[in-house]
Amino acid sequence: MAPATVTIANGASWQEVAADRQRHRDATIAEVSPPVPDFQPQDIPANVTDIPAKVLTEAEIAITNTNAEDLVKKLATGEWSATAVANAFLRRAALAQKLTNCITELLPKRALERAAELDKYLATHGKPMGPLHGVPISVKEHIGIKGEDLNAGYVAWVGRVAEDDALVVQYLCEAGAVIYARTTQPQSLMQIETNTNLYGVTVNPRNTTLTPGGSSGGEGALIGLRGSVLGIGTDIGGSIRNPAALNGLFGFKPTTQRIPYAGWGVARTSGETVSGAVGPLSTSLEGLNLFTKAVLDQKPWLRQPSLVSMDWRDPAQFFPNRKLRVGVLYNDGVVRPHPPILRAITELAEKLKGSPNIDVVEWKPWKHDLSWSIIANIYFCDGGADVKATIEASGEPWRPLTNFILNDNPHVKEHSISTLWDAMDARDAYRDKYAQLWNETADGNNAPLDIILCPAGPGVAPKIDQSKYWGYTSHWNLLDYPGVVFPVADAVGAGEREAPFEYPEGYQPVSESDKLVYEQWKEHGAKGYKDAPISLQAVARRFDDEKLLRAVQILLEEAGLPVTVPA
Amino acid sequence: MAPATVTIANGASWQEVAADRQRHRDATIAEVSPPVPDFQPQDIPANVTDIPAKVLTEAEIAITNTNAEDLVKKLATGEWSATAVANAFLRRAALAQKLTNCITELLPKRALERAAELDKYLATHGKPMGPLHGVPISVKEHIGIKGEDLNAGYVAWVGRVAEDDALVVQYLCEAGAVIYARTTQPQSLMQIETNTNLYGVTVNPRNTTLTPGGSSGGEGALIGLRGSVLGIGTDIGGSIRNPAALNGLFGFKPTTQRIPYAGWGVARTSGETVSGAVGPLSTSLEGLNLFTKAVLDQKPWLRQPSLVSMDWRDPAQFFPNRKLRVGVLYNDGVVRPHPPILRAITELAEKLKGSPNIDVVEWKPWKHDLSWSIIANIYFCDGGADVKATIEASGEPWRPLTNFILNDNPHVKEHSISTLWDAMDARDAYRDKYAQLWNETADGNNAPLDIILCPAGPGVAPKIDQSKYWGYTSHWNLLDYPGVVFPVADAVGAGEREAPFEYPEGYQPVSESDKLVYEQWKEHGAKGYKDAPISLQAVARRFDDEKLLRAVQILLEEAGLPVTVPA
Repeated sequence: MAPATVTIANGASWQEVAADRQRHRDATIAEVSPPVPDFQPQDIPANVTDIPAKVLTEAEIAITNTNAEDLVKKLATGEWSATAVANAFLRRAALAQKLTNCITELLPKRALERAAELDKYLATHGKPMGPLHGVPISVKEHIGIKGEDLNAGYVAWVGRVAEDDALVVQYLCEAGAVIYARTTQPQSLMQIETNTNLYGVTVNPRNTTLTPGGSSGGEGALIGLRGSVLGIGTDIGGSIRNPAALNGLFGFKPTTQRIPYAGWGVARTSGETVSGAVGPLSTSLEGLNLFTKAVLDQKPWLRQPSLVSMDWRDPAQFFPNRKLRVGVLYNDGVVRPHPPILRAITELAEKLKGSPNIDVVEWKPWKHDLSWSIIANIYFCDGGADVKATIEASGEPWRPLTNFILNDNPHVKEHSISTLWDAMDARDAYRDKYAQLWNETADGNNAPLDIILCPAGPGVAPKIDQSKYWGYTSHWNLLDYPGVVFPVADAVGAGEREAPFEYPEGYQPVSESDKLVYEQWKEHGAKGYKDAPISLQAVARRFDDEKLLRAVQILLEEAGLPVTVPA
Repeated sequence: MAPATVTIANGASWQEVAADRQRHRDATIAEVSPPVPDFQPQDIPANVTDIPAKVLTEAEIAITNTNAEDLVKKLATGEWSATAVANAFLRRAALAQKLTNCITELLPKRALERAAELDKYLATHGKPMGPLHGVPISVKEHIGIKGEDLNAGYVAWVGRVAEDDALVVQYLCEAGAVIYARTTQPQSLMQIETNTNLYGVTVNPRNTTLTPGGSSGGEGALIGLRGSVLGIGTDIGGSIRNPAALNGLFGFKPTTQRIPYAGWGVARTSGETVSGAVGPLSTSLEGLNLFTKAVLDQKPWLRQPSLVSMDWRDPAQFFPNRKLRVGVLYNDGVVRPHPPILRAITELAEKLKGSPNIDVVEWKPWKHDLSWSIIANIYFCDGGADVKATIEASGEPWRPLTNFILNDNPHVKEHSISTLWDAMDARDAYRDKYAQLWNETADGNNAPLDIILCPAGPGVAPKIDQSKYWGYTSHWNLLDYPGVVFPVADAVGAGEREAPFEYPEGYQPVSESDKLVYEQWKEHGAKGYKDAPISLQAVARRFDDEKLLRAVQILLEEAGLPVTVPA
């Protein structure tokens, strides 16, 4: 029998609770067989992506270098057993933990029992159990897993155990998935980095001096090291798209109310005034499709009626006989993107302009600073009281970026019902205005734009505790537009073509946030951000999720860019 | 030039403002040509439905006795001009005002100019302007009309002028509709009767001692007298379905976030914790389809992005090769329906059981008292402060039923953000439970139920100021299920078959509301409710709007009931 969980309810200090959680995590890592080696900090290079090939077997590397859509095929035919696949990913995830600190616990027992069940099913029935038969899926910790702790990164919540799998996990398992790893997230979930007093800081596998982003940063680092090829994240300000972008992955924040969120654990922050979305991160664009289709095909709104009853629409149906219309937002007018991002979007837009299948126009931003002030005013409708109480219940320290977004955020206030309604009116007016702008892109010959192509953030992965500008992602949360991020197959330091995109001589920042981001580039530059992946984002109008997924595929193919992350 | 509006802002008393609004109303009635006669109160019988045939021309009666779907045909071919149709409905609406007090103003100038434009269009182009070419549509007053007062029934708001038509009106006009009449609603909109200090009390054309229901009761009375065959209502607790039922009409409350509500005027009550829906009342089931299709086919979510982007789905696609599965809720367990209602639903269910195309099962209610306590707790999230301030700003008296729902309602409280979240949790838990119950109606051979058949209220149209039980409609607002009400082609006093449905000897009411409703029946009985229409309701799961419309058609046809109101 497992030792009882150490909790503050039982009189433990926050340090004792954290130490126990780490012991628990390490114990689950130690169950992986054969065990993966430990690493001394001084033996870990900045870029750890070469290490798995040195530690794992060739077969394990072959499996874990395979994207979800190909895993599906090999598992469905029995070429690879679910057990072999689960074990390979458990091993690589264990290694990812030792290199990037991205895991809260592995679930070897659950995973291997489930894999054995799937293997037996295939042997007996001669067919896979579902469209995700045997596909290992990693899960951000605050998405509940039956019988496991559900602490959402709060020391005070350690000891809360989920009675059941979160609904999205149930659907994925019904489709044949294997749940094997739980991943780190930041204190409060309201950071775009990943650090807690329970588990420490998660780092970026391409450059361990950088953040993997957040809040689904454990997923970002784990998938970045291919300790997973498909994982579940959540996003209310960028928390799927930011870590996907910072690790060079594909990430998809659907429109809210499409993918079930019942059974997640969150402190109360925004009610439904602005909502988070559950969605996938993956090593392939097709992984995003697989995940979303598997869930929607089961009609989740029948069990969670707050969802919209909108069936999965085959992306192939979009753009059969007409051009894809793309608006390009180079700069949101609040923060100028770092040179590698500005170069990437400019070069991609130029490529797309050469395609006969794509129309490219410029998208002029409209008051993105107002957008931030509106969303930041409703992220914590109770003035952050519930988050504060949850942090302070254990005496755990405030992490710097939790402080930044809550205590140091001038837009946060404790709302009355009346001021909440004012805030909702401001939100709706902004949404209506953006809809109008989008409608105005129609002209006599053309329907309105299909998507907007834009940065996924102001730069590549920042140094730790420096991620303070959410606007390139949170803007689309305010609008509840779906967003996909994708790598542009390059990385900082991979070319010497920065010059035309460098800040102009004597650049004068246009905002406080711009100044901060500018100074970060001045301080660290291409050298400081070496090997950081360069990613971009595409967004579509609300509920155009499948159309967006198809548009990104067309866009990448037309630009000659890969739809998978190179293994 | 029209005289300036008398308002409290200009120092007028509430009585002076009301008198001016009535003068304005009467002036617009007087513009109708030829004028309709006045009636002395003593000359108005209880049932006024025979009067139009005595006052209007044969041609006018022929036009106004025609349902929307047939008007469309005759207008599209030019058999009837839009001008003739508009004028006939203006005349009958003017008469309806004199008999039931259902109009806030007529719009003869707008209507006849628009009709002339449509007639010219048809003559020039040889085709109709849109699917509603020339169809006159009446509009509940708080749905804004460009250049007209938008007082929402509050004295204090008189003088507010709408800058534009409400969005739903714009879409209907784009489809070819003619806007010609604005209809009464109750003070605060939160009553299921219709009375204000501005315009007085609206009564039921079948029996003027009874209410036409509310809050879209002006529409109910107007359409009940065929001064309109298609009107716009709104519903957050029954306000479309209740007046449709009490006047023997078809009424449709869609799922929220499908039909645009931008441009309506409402005091703040529930934010988005529970939302109202815009929808049609009509003399025919097909009228509901026509309205909804005309709006959705224009993709209103592109202009009001808070709507769900769900296209109109042809109802004909549903139930092509399988039975319709109907659950029957006879009694919600809180208030036993009056005998005519219990008889109607029992007899209809028996008829349906005889159909080879319909499965009928009993639906057991689950805590509908809890449902009411949850929704009543979020109808006025600010404790009613905004409504109170709006009423009190003019010194107008509180109407009895506004008092009932706000000041005397034990569930109303001023919420903090934290208690609001608790209330939302209770709401969601109830919704989840109802979804589960619905899912459990599936068995090995059958998918879950398609619809629930139930009363539309505890009785037929009550006496004035007696409508205090909302549960049979508000229940489905809490769940956000679409609902359709329809007449069952009978009326109180039309048969002598009540006995088996009378309250049992020595009946003991099961709740305070039940006692009230029981005592109303004891006091007034079939004689007191003479000629009141008997209607029922069908509801479907959230977003199953079109499926519901088709299901009601099948249900009526299988039962041998008409899909139109007898003219």
